[in-house]
Amino acid sequence: MKLYTYYRSQASFRVRIALNLKGVAREEVYLHLGRGDQFAPDYRALNPQMVVPTLIDGETKLFQSLAILEYLEEKYPQPPLLPADIAARAWVRGLALINIADSHPLVVPRIRHYLTDELGLGADQLGGWIGHWLDAGLAAIEALLAEHRESGRFCHGDTPTIADIGLVTQVTPARTFGIDLAPYPRIMRIYDSCMALPAFADAHPAKQPDAE
Amino acid sequence: MKLYTYYRSQASFRVRIALNLKGVAREEVYLHLGRGDQFAPDYRALNPQMVVPTLIDGETKLFQSLAILEYLEEKYPQPPLLPADIAARAWVRGLALINIADSHPLVVPRIRHYLTDELGLGADQLGGWIGHWLDAGLAAIEALLAEHRESGRFCHGDTPTIADIGLVTQVTPARTFGIDLAPYPRIMRIYDSCMALPAFADAHPAKQPDAE
Repeated sequence: MKLYTYYRSQASFRVRIALNLKGVAREEVYLHLGRGDQFAPDYRALNPQMVVPTLIDGETKLFQSLAILEYLEEKYPQPPLLPADIAARAWVRGLALINIADSHPLVVPRIRHYLTDELGLGADQLGGWIGHWLDAGLAAIEALLAEHRESGRFCHGDTPTIADIGLVTQVTPARTFGIDLAPYPRIMRIYDSCMALPAFADAHPAKQPDAE
Repeated sequence: MKLYTYYRSQASFRVRIALNLKGVAREEVYLHLGRGDQFAPDYRALNPQMVVPTLIDGETKLFQSLAILEYLEEKYPQPPLLPADIAARAWVRGLALINIADSHPLVVPRIRHYLTDELGLGADQLGGWIGHWLDAGLAAIEALLAEHRESGRFCHGDTPTIADIGLVTQVTPARTFGIDLAPYPRIMRIYDSCMALPAFADAHPAKQPDAE
């Protein structure tokens, strides 16, 4: 498989984790989002959203990180990243979507650029925006973990799922932007469980060949 | 099933469409997001994100619209809202996620309130923000439809899928906010195909009992 990726991209991070967990080898193509590589005509023809990641599997072009995780789960069922029970699967997907579909889209580079370049926000206002939305997601995830009886070493049970991938990509930008994580002990316990696994640790932005 | 919903919520709209397509009956509980019903302690205990929808199925509490759609697909496989082929499933999910995980999270009420109340944006700046991000999603969806050989009456083939649900909830706010949809003929052709089906038409915000 060929992965178009950027080390700091949390969406790329999710796919790297899943590929590692599934033991699927990949070739990587590095785009530098800060330099605008995603807007090059060749990449735009591949990914009309001009975002990373894009994953190529033979003739199949895959986009949107959660769609890619589901594809990998369907193509490589072992080890499973979703539980078997349909109610548990919905909980795992729902938890992941708090990160993927609510918090993360609000703090990606294109949004930060619009806020500063188009709307003229200062550094304090931008920091306030990022902190507000990351905190909102973290608080919701922490509350859902507190009421979920099946939360153990990981979000659901004792093996990592898509929920843990979403949890990790909520915590990583929170750390980057200096959010206080002390109010979220369940999240941080699970984050540490994840990061103890090579599949997660090796996928971390700081460990990528294109990291600066 | 019991659905906590708000007529204008595009995420609630998605779940109403899926329940209608699957023929699953529901009782509805109406929250008025403009009046802040989602912040009431009872609802917060149910949905710590303080957003709609929440769907209750017996003992199971479901949140996040895409997680709910996948649950309904797994519990009620007929009629299918995902194709059988795993590459096609990934394409359908990816298309839906452009709406669910990129465009829509940027224009929901909580974001609009933050932009105006916390950051002091004027009406023109707010309109510019909404238009910019809805257009970005529409352009990407239109480009992906143009290259997708299996696009027919609907996004993928001749029966509605989760991709069509996402397409509809991209177009509806675009209409509400007065976006020019002429550049998106493929999207509008499919939107019209969807809205010709009672399952979609009956789920439209304007048709809900709590519509104002």
